[in-house]
Amino acid sequence: MGLILLLTPAFFKSIIKDLQKVEQELQKYVQTQNKLLSETSRHLLLAGGKRLRPAFTLLVGKLYNSSLDKLIPLAAALEMIHMATLVHDDVVDKSLTRRGKPTVKAKWGDSVSLNTGDYLFAKSLIIISDYEDKRIANVLANVSVQMCQGEIQQLATAYNTEQGLRDYFYRIKRKTALLISASTQLGAIASGASQKDIRALKYYGYYLGMAFQITDDILDMTADEKKLGKPVGSDLRQGIITLPAIFTLKHTPYGNRLKKLLSEKNKSEQAIMEAISIIKDSGGIDYSFKIARKYIEKAKKELEKLPPVKHREVLREIASFIYKRSY
Amino acid sequence: MGLILLLTPAFFKSIIKDLQKVEQELQKYVQTQNKLLSETSRHLLLAGGKRLRPAFTLLVGKLYNSSLDKLIPLAAALEMIHMATLVHDDVVDKSLTRRGKPTVKAKWGDSVSLNTGDYLFAKSLIIISDYEDKRIANVLANVSVQMCQGEIQQLATAYNTEQGLRDYFYRIKRKTALLISASTQLGAIASGASQKDIRALKYYGYYLGMAFQITDDILDMTADEKKLGKPVGSDLRQGIITLPAIFTLKHTPYGNRLKKLLSEKNKSEQAIMEAISIIKDSGGIDYSFKIARKYIEKAKKELEKLPPVKHREVLREIASFIYKRSY
Repeated sequence: MGLILLLTPAFFKSIIKDLQKVEQELQKYVQTQNKLLSETSRHLLLAGGKRLRPAFTLLVGKLYNSSLDKLIPLAAALEMIHMATLVHDDVVDKSLTRRGKPTVKAKWGDSVSLNTGDYLFAKSLIIISDYEDKRIANVLANVSVQMCQGEIQQLATAYNTEQGLRDYFYRIKRKTALLISASTQLGAIASGASQKDIRALKYYGYYLGMAFQITDDILDMTADEKKLGKPVGSDLRQGIITLPAIFTLKHTPYGNRLKKLLSEKNKSEQAIMEAISIIKDSGGIDYSFKIARKYIEKAKKELEKLPPVKHREVLREIASFIYKRSY
Repeated sequence: MGLILLLTPAFFKSIIKDLQKVEQELQKYVQTQNKLLSETSRHLLLAGGKRLRPAFTLLVGKLYNSSLDKLIPLAAALEMIHMATLVHDDVVDKSLTRRGKPTVKAKWGDSVSLNTGDYLFAKSLIIISDYEDKRIANVLANVSVQMCQGEIQQLATAYNTEQGLRDYFYRIKRKTALLISASTQLGAIASGASQKDIRALKYYGYYLGMAFQITDDILDMTADEKKLGKPVGSDLRQGIITLPAIFTLKHTPYGNRLKKLLSEKNKSEQAIMEAISIIKDSGGIDYSFKIARKYIEKAKKELEKLPPVKHREVLREIASFIYKRSY
């Protein structure tokens, strides 16, 4: 399972049992008398995933010795929102596999995927509406709106080689960083943390989420296909222009050739391989690593604002790990 | 606009100005810096609609002389949830026109429609998360889950001529009645009504919603195409088997012929016209009217549980009007 790959045992140990409880809750929450929805939701759950968002909520809870009763439903709701966006994204991106397994789209088609996403999102709202603290629903509603904005901007900028860093950061903030930020921020809110701590953990999650997406975008060009669970270069194939490509397009003499390759809608496999080669040779990957490292450093700085409890170190280690995973 | 057709001036007058305020709020709420999302949302808003859900919330508010500050955002949120489901339904049903105008799907395609629906739904959550009363978010989360169940059951039972009344009522409850019920129930909650009143208004909305969908399903077979804004028989064309058809299938000697016509996936226009003729001749429409009338009577009975204020009469008139509109 992806989780074990991502979270090395050292910092994973403290929450492994709690994550199993989240998993049980998820299985319980998605159940419904409707056979088809139960099946598709179960398929999504069993397809795995890193459970990164629940893990962050639980780890933040550890900082405050917070009660699991408050954290586990929240962690499950965050994962369900994430799953809802994935199943909708697979429709938009026409993805047939994810994590090496067929997507809901591939098995049941677009209409069922659309409904499954709506269903999981609505189910998460039932959990969230049970929390007394209004901030929880408010943060998640705002993040959800922004995630849609990110997704539609990705559609609008596909194959556009004129886009710059600003477009890229706008997009990955909304696609990825904000929900990870919500996971740490809401973990703090549910734990009754101070305003100051909530803010620091919100930004910790945000910077980490940015770094996470950048390393994801690097891995899409550099990883081993088997480990990745999908073909290398799938972003480029879909016209999604990520940081390594933007660097090469804007700042190197290879820009023109790359532009020609990337703006083509039906790229040959050879063109994709050539594009990746150009990006690598012109320093696009190295540059992206540098930016990811900057975000990791920013994330770590936020941690310094928190009380120096033992679990703060765990959050530091995860930050370093997220950066290293892309090598 | 559909609203004026539906709500005759007599009971419309008391809320016409307030509905205009809802309209202004809707235009404000859907605005975003993202050009594409603003455009699609605006297109949806301008395409009109009956604004039935906001109207019910406002009319219930009148029973209690409730403040508009509490009612208008709620009314707008209900309409946005409704719009979100319509734009997703159009993807599932492959609908190219609605109310005589091109759908978002027709103009921008499936991916943009999917995102627009997600966006409108998430925007409604921002409004809802501002209400102190937890019941509001809770009712809407539960209704949203059930709406998905209804939608997926519609997919699962398409072209299935073995389905019975139970399947049909399960579906229309979730597709239509529950959100109308939420509109009256939440109007009462936001007005600070008593538990007894909230319950009566919840059921009033529910029964009215059932009657509304039944008359809608009748109109799909009997209406003038121009008034309907879409081709007659579109339910049958999509394999959606509604009450008039179920009656004929189960209880008349024409069942076998109709079964053959309805289970065919690519029906000719002639087959659709023949199916509608059979349904009409065998009493399917009359039977459906009878059921709709029963629901209207149940809705009116709920009103008797409320204090005999002037505006209670308005809600009675609407109930009668919903029944009559299908003639």
